[in-house]
Amino acid sequence: MNIDEAVSLIRAIPDYPKPGILFQDITPLLGNGEAFTAVTDHFAQFARASTSIAGIEARGFIFASALANSMKTGFVPIRKAGKLPHAVFSQSYGLEYGTDILEIHVDAIPFAGEVLLIDDVLATGGTLDAAIQLVNRAGGSVYQILALLEIQALEGRARLAVKYPQIPVHSLVVS
Amino acid sequence: MNIDEAVSLIRAIPDYPKPGILFQDITPLLGNGEAFTAVTDHFAQFARASTSIAGIEARGFIFASALANSMKTGFVPIRKAGKLPHAVFSQSYGLEYGTDILEIHVDAIPFAGEVLLIDDVLATGGTLDAAIQLVNRAGGSVYQILALLEIQALEGRARLAVKYPQIPVHSLVVS
Repeated sequence: MNIDEAVSLIRAIPDYPKPGILFQDITPLLGNGEAFTAVTDHFAQFARASTSIAGIEARGFIFASALANSMKTGFVPIRKAGKLPHAVFSQSYGLEYGTDILEIHVDAIPFAGEVLLIDDVLATGGTLDAAIQLVNRAGGSVYQILALLEIQALEGRARLAVKYPQIPVHSLVVS
Repeated sequence: MNIDEAVSLIRAIPDYPKPGILFQDITPLLGNGEAFTAVTDHFAQFARASTSIAGIEARGFIFASALANSMKTGFVPIRKAGKLPHAVFSQSYGLEYGTDILEIHVDAIPFAGEVLLIDDVLATGGTLDAAIQLVNRAGGSVYQILALLEIQALEGRARLAVKYPQIPVHSLVVS
């Protein structure tokens, strides 16, 4: 299956998570082995050998883990507050209302390594920004950001480009 | 790396998530590409071609997604309440105090398919039991349960064996 056919399996769900939002549901793509493989193979073009793949809880785990398997590299979970058992770095970031917190284990990135950072959606860029800061604080550096879906109107790409001009961002689907 | 070396990377964290609990932290295993690959290859022995791999949020996603990539099969997320955007089946299950809810999309399992179900920990078996019921309600059937860690004293294996004698359970590490 080619990547366009895979992407065509994403379906729009109206009024989720709240009225007026058209949610892009990736589960039909994930549920199709050929489509999921096509997406992982596509993302693998952006990954370097012998680096780590970091994914943001929870949907980011799905793509990061598949890509780590494909590249035979390590997987680094970036989680919501209180979910990681060892010593962590914490980073708060703004949401539409209030703030949230992401965490990474202090020893998550061995040998000051390079990290590919992946999440399902690039919206305002706030989540990815927090994750980049966590990778840096853990001694690593992000060399590539990948997202399945990018919501262009929320300008996350522009915001990340100003703050991290050295990190390329690739989104599979831009809407 | 062989599977014993991979397993040796799991570390015990005292007093997490609460005093008196010795938590088995799998992140050093996940962060090592050779170890994570060894675990996925080990689990792949139990997977059948052309079936679905279902994982339970959130750590179950990590192993299910890697295994789906390895087998080139579809991945089915079983999520906490309110996280799936389409129509769902919901299943409550008992915790130490109170109950929790897992959900699956009603159309998650195409063609009444066979499903390998995977989670990080087999404890009382309550979470896996709820997940099996969800797979059944979505028209599928679980042919194999895999867990990374089994806590024998909590008797989940025995409980599942009484209720689902036809479903084999394999845990990588039994403690």
